[in-house]
Amino acid sequence: MDDIIQYGMVGGDVKAFIGEVHRKAFAFDPRARLVAGAFSVVPEYHELTADTYHVAKDRRYLDYREMAEKESQRPDGIDLVVICTPNALHYEVAKEFLLHNISVLCEKPLCFRKEEGEELLKITKEKDLLFAVNYGYTGYPMVKVAKEMIKKGELGTLLSVHAEYLQDWLLAAADPKTREESRKKIWRLNPKMSGSSCALGDIGTHAENLLKYLLGERPSQVFCEKENYGQELDLRDEILLRYPSGLKGSISVSQIALGHLNGLSFEIDGSEASLVWHQENPDHLFLTKKGRGTEDLSRSSTALQGYAASQAYRRLPAGHPEGLYEAFANHDRTIVTNLLKRKRKEVLGPEDEDYPHGEDGLEGVEFVEACLASASKQGWVDFIGDEPNKGGVNV
Amino acid sequence: MDDIIQYGMVGGDVKAFIGEVHRKAFAFDPRARLVAGAFSVVPEYHELTADTYHVAKDRRYLDYREMAEKESQRPDGIDLVVICTPNALHYEVAKEFLLHNISVLCEKPLCFRKEEGEELLKITKEKDLLFAVNYGYTGYPMVKVAKEMIKKGELGTLLSVHAEYLQDWLLAAADPKTREESRKKIWRLNPKMSGSSCALGDIGTHAENLLKYLLGERPSQVFCEKENYGQELDLRDEILLRYPSGLKGSISVSQIALGHLNGLSFEIDGSEASLVWHQENPDHLFLTKKGRGTEDLSRSSTALQGYAASQAYRRLPAGHPEGLYEAFANHDRTIVTNLLKRKRKEVLGPEDEDYPHGEDGLEGVEFVEACLASASKQGWVDFIGDEPNKGGVNV
Amino acid sequence: MDDIIQYGMVGGDVKAFIGEVHRKAFAFDPRARLVAGAFSVVPEYHELTADTYHVAKDRRYLDYREMAEKESQRPDGIDLVVICTPNALHYEVAKEFLLHNISVLCEKPLCFRKEEGEELLKITKEKDLLFAVNYGYTGYPMVKVAKEMIKKGELGTLLSVHAEYLQDWLLAAADPKTREESRKKIWRLNPKMSGSSCALGDIGTHAENLLKYLLGERPSQVFCEKENYGQELDLRDEILLRYPSGLKGSISVSQIALGHLNGLSFEIDGSEASLVWHQENPDHLFLTKKGRGTEDLSRSSTALQGYAASQAYRRLPAGHPEGLYEAFANHDRTIVTNLLKRKRKEVLGPEDEDYPHGEDGLEGVEFVEACLASASKQGWVDFIGDEPNKGGVNV
Amino acid sequence: MDDIIQYGMVGGDVKAFIGEVHRKAFAFDPRARLVAGAFSVVPEYHELTADTYHVAKDRRYLDYREMAEKESQRPDGIDLVVICTPNALHYEVAKEFLLHNISVLCEKPLCFRKEEGEELLKITKEKDLLFAVNYGYTGYPMVKVAKEMIKKGELGTLLSVHAEYLQDWLLAAADPKTREESRKKIWRLNPKMSGSSCALGDIGTHAENLLKYLLGERPSQVFCEKENYGQELDLRDEILLRYPSGLKGSISVSQIALGHLNGLSFEIDGSEASLVWHQENPDHLFLTKKGRGTEDLSRSSTALQGYAASQAYRRLPAGHPEGLYEAFANHDRTIVTNLLKRKRKEVLGPEDEDYPHGEDGLEGVEFVEACLASASKQGWVDFIGDEPNKGGVNV
Repeated sequence: MDDIIQYGMVGGDVKAFIGEVHRKAFAFDPRARLVAGAFSVVPEYHELTADTYHVAKDRRYLDYREMAEKESQRPDGIDLVVICTPNALHYEVAKEFLLHNISVLCEKPLCFRKEEGEELLKITKEKDLLFAVNYGYTGYPMVKVAKEMIKKGELGTLLSVHAEYLQDWLLAAADPKTREESRKKIWRLNPKMSGSSCALGDIGTHAENLLKYLLGERPSQVFCEKENYGQELDLRDEILLRYPSGLKGSISVSQIALGHLNGLSFEIDGSEASLVWHQENPDHLFLTKKGRGTEDLSRSSTALQGYAASQAYRRLPAGHPEGLYEAFANHDRTIVTNLLKRKRKEVLGPEDEDYPHGEDGLEGVEFVEACLASASKQGWVDFIGDEPNKGGVNV
Repeated sequence: MDDIIQYGMVGGDVKAFIGEVHRKAFAFDPRARLVAGAFSVVPEYHELTADTYHVAKDRRYLDYREMAEKESQRPDGIDLVVICTPNALHYEVAKEFLLHNISVLCEKPLCFRKEEGEELLKITKEKDLLFAVNYGYTGYPMVKVAKEMIKKGELGTLLSVHAEYLQDWLLAAADPKTREESRKKIWRLNPKMSGSSCALGDIGTHAENLLKYLLGERPSQVFCEKENYGQELDLRDEILLRYPSGLKGSISVSQIALGHLNGLSFEIDGSEASLVWHQENPDHLFLTKKGRGTEDLSRSSTALQGYAASQAYRRLPAGHPEGLYEAFANHDRTIVTNLLKRKRKEVLGPEDEDYPHGEDGLEGVEFVEACLASASKQGWVDFIGDEPNKGGVNV
Repeated sequence: MDDIIQYGMVGGDVKAFIGEVHRKAFAFDPRARLVAGAFSVVPEYHELTADTYHVAKDRRYLDYREMAEKESQRPDGIDLVVICTPNALHYEVAKEFLLHNISVLCEKPLCFRKEEGEELLKITKEKDLLFAVNYGYTGYPMVKVAKEMIKKGELGTLLSVHAEYLQDWLLAAADPKTREESRKKIWRLNPKMSGSSCALGDIGTHAENLLKYLLGERPSQVFCEKENYGQELDLRDEILLRYPSGLKGSISVSQIALGHLNGLSFEIDGSEASLVWHQENPDHLFLTKKGRGTEDLSRSSTALQGYAASQAYRRLPAGHPEGLYEAFANHDRTIVTNLLKRKRKEVLGPEDEDYPHGEDGLEGVEFVEACLASASKQGWVDFIGDEPNKGGVNV
Repeated sequence: MDDIIQYGMVGGDVKAFIGEVHRKAFAFDPRARLVAGAFSVVPEYHELTADTYHVAKDRRYLDYREMAEKESQRPDGIDLVVICTPNALHYEVAKEFLLHNISVLCEKPLCFRKEEGEELLKITKEKDLLFAVNYGYTGYPMVKVAKEMIKKGELGTLLSVHAEYLQDWLLAAADPKTREESRKKIWRLNPKMSGSSCALGDIGTHAENLLKYLLGERPSQVFCEKENYGQELDLRDEILLRYPSGLKGSISVSQIALGHLNGLSFEIDGSEASLVWHQENPDHLFLTKKGRGTEDLSRSSTALQGYAASQAYRRLPAGHPEGLYEAFANHDRTIVTNLLKRKRKEVLGPEDEDYPHGEDGLEGVEFVEACLASASKQGWVDFIGDEPNKGGVNV
């Protein structure tokens, strides 16, 4: 079956949010098939999910270790595992499948500690597998058009860069009256489950990854002011960035800002033009050229026909909205193509690498660590060590 | 297989736009499977589409009549055919499958002449089949929330209603310099292929259907000012509406308005509140209550948790954009559920009828006819005959 | 005093809205001085206003006839009277001052009947006076930039034109429960005071005037669907327009549309570009050129530096909002310059005529009459008689 | 003349921007009169301005010292001087008039060094004069409504606060190709004329003042990352704020961000509601209450009728835009009332103090100094000394 990629899933039962998104996004691609899974530690949810997706009885696993073992032994075993478990399990699940020669698409964060991430990348490299981490927001076509504009130099010299990721759904955790109840109900507020930070790890890394994707480089230094609201848990952060080139930037992160549902955005200011994009209005990119008014560029519109990304990620005509499923599906399509080419021993082109890599996941872990270190010392910390720009592929 | 709906497709090869949208939308539902097709009269495109979607060799048909015949004879024959051919073929293809006892989801317009539509509805009723016509825009969750608000009386007495559908992609057809070339290239500009009107049939009927869906009633009289730009082809229309209740309204339609990509919108003005919605920003509904500022209501947000439609059509959390695929998928999910219940001889509830019906398609044909008659006589014409409110189900 | 224009005011005491606006707008111009007035028939309000504005005791009049008489006899009498009375008095007050050789700036509507307006224009012409009618919205710089773009042909062939004027402040008049009370409280709802229509005369004429100003021509035919809400009073109208050139257009008017405070706007669609402007966001003009995204053009920005109107009406730098006072002040400045040039026997240039003329006021009266006639016969009526394009000056 | 305030002006000839704004803003108030001036060191501009505003020959001064001297000796001398000179002269001009017992409205910045500001405040206090510094943006009615909401506790516990002031007009100064030329042409880029910082002093202090006005308290610590673009001149800054209460905040400042003309804005996030306001859309305040959608509140609308600020600063009805002149005029009206009450020995109420005070100006100077110190040491610096909350009056 060299024209089909079979995938399995660990976690992500039908009661959870992100598993469904991945299944729908893969369903856009007739070359991908869900055939195996360990969907939940709750047997009822696991079976319900397997039934819903017509997973064969012998490919339903309650233990992911068994799944890795058995699938790796089948001649028609899965090509890819999609990991949607709570954050705390990402590392061990990913490692298990890699060791069984199965490529991985892991939800973010990649892991909790830098050493774990480095180990996963090492195994991936040794076994020549694909390892993707789901920074899904860079899958939006207009983000890719923005990257292309920057790369072509259309913005001139970059003068400053900014990203925001503002939400309000953890507001109750900042309120002394409801704080304790929130912490009990929401696993993201439990450091053992979600990692050593909340806002930084959950959404701050998305903002950092978005800037990295757009610019093709990571900051050399970060400064983080962590806002704790009377407890160790961070819910709001201001992060300042210094780049090797001298460029400066900032990231604002909040999960307690009423009126912001999922407000990821960026602004890139250059000497010739600036770009603004908002995740909640993803089909539009706002371009201001020097001496002109701000121009609203719509995905797939004639104004963008000269951009490769606008062509490659064209699904619906201009004015017909696309959303987050389609952004995920854009990366999933690349991952499926990449895996098929690997199967067929074909040469991978740069366009086959335009998905978020394990290296991006590791950078996210390092970013959280650097921010926490900065917040602790109330000063700047180095973000790039002795290996500048070692991050993921820049298409 | 009483938990799966198998469908086939006529027209809609992978080179065309709308066939892909339907396939992706059905792919959201693990209960639906594409198993047969007569995708194109161009054998190469037909085969490419069948290969892409892994359609078995013996269920690939070059002639839709053969497809209807053979599928109706198979014990595992298709439950539903999706018709994506050029408009001129809708009637005959739909009729063929209905006569072979196969339910139909037909792209709009249903047909060109009222009598054809009445014939199709008659067969559907006699054979107790499902007949859906793809007015997909009413599949957006916020349209359904708006309908619910209106039905609950939250707007008070309705004072006026308005819809617009503005595009710019046929601009070249209005320009004497490029008119002839446009007409040759674009089948929508050929009355033999697309019907006796252009803007009215292509997009005006969407606007009419949207108002009908929201209000649950159709106008009793219409007045249409057709704008021809030096030829018989209509590209812009202003339509005035009078409802049986005394309510008045209007519809503006254009395919030559620069800056409008796919600008379908409505405004419903009531004595207690008004509602505004734009298709290009589909996750938002703008509510103005008397004495308050305009409130931006986001799909799946807590502000909407009391609305059944917000719960039933909740896929992604608030702030995570959904688009047209998901709107289509909402109706497709209802159609699949409806067909499964029919298979299992279960009773259909009102929620199983919330998809655009053949009657809506017939109303669209009547609407175009009424508008053309009005434009011709330059006066008001009756739109409801002796059977008021005979249209589709109002959930 | 050939460098000062002295003006008086009839009506417009400090308790009323529009008198204050005129006084503030004239106060922008150090060449204009308020020196006389018959501000109210309520002596207390009249005196309060005169005190507030330091009007000399001997130039305070309780009777406007006395004011016209005495001011015309003074060697330092007023050059201009600003009429802010209720609508029903406009005609007789204007006539009185014209007959005493005093130029007039009259609030709209000019009068109630066409014959009255024609008489006023005749006197104005015979006596070579200035007669302005306050269609103040064309004073916004971005409206003037739009006019300039249209005149220069930057939009290509005009394909359709639209204006809306939507408000919600008369909502109570459409509600059977509050209708009677509203009619008692609000003079605009009393036909004897405000004229034979409500929405048409109050705001519809502004929309008509705006299109006329932009296009430089008036429609040849109008069709009006009047919406009465159970009484003779009109609160909502849809008006269709046909121009001599074949161009078509529409005007929507409502005073009962919740969420619209003072929603005057236009859209002009051409073959090369389109323009959109909203009065509530007056510093911005939205331009969509063929093949480009919609561009947000800001008043006084570098993107507009090639436009004469952008230079002539530049007050504050881009991004520093201007509002309605400044729009009024733009016309008032031209009126003052015009009157000064007349005093000095200087030649008037076309730029000295860029204010709304008596002819525009007369056209407004004719527009209301034509709309009412159309609504009555439910058909098209001629709007231009045997004198096409006789309207005000087109700069 | 105890019902008139006579004012003079130093600087601000008709060729400059800010002098005209002040004259227009004062012209809204019939109680204020411009009667004297030293408008420019260029005699031609000085005379032109004096002629334009009909300033008597004997009250035209080429030297501001002479003006202070002579006006203070006249029985009908000016009550107030408005200082619109280049920044470097503010201190000495203000001091001269204060010493001659004349109240002052000074453009910002108050001065360059903290000691100068303290001296000016000391003289003001000793002589019991009025000293206003023109932070004009807090004059917008919606800013005052926001302040009222915060004070009433409608936002709950404040969780974070943010202000931005983004412009693009100094972009050329960041570009190595055009830097030198820009510095020669624009006095704001000359530290001797404009002060020890550019963006911080020019616009950063506005943002700081806006937050101070809204919250009624100043930060206890600031952190500033200064962005220099290869020279000592700052054009972009990120500033972090810590308040005595534990509240945190940030200010972003740029004069090189394409697409931002005069983008001053704030967001105040509370546990019960958040507020967002943009200076370029000043009539609107965006309120998000917990569990609701974002509500667009319009100046003077019924939704705001319970707010004192909405009533006190109501000029035009809702939907009729007001701009910067009116914001200035709001403060000027209060200053005129204040001065008149002082003349008449009336008691001043808190509403008579709602204008930006000298203390606000001093705080601005201290803010720039603190930011520069922070940028230099790359760490947090104290902003409040031993006298917390010594700033201007909080109405």
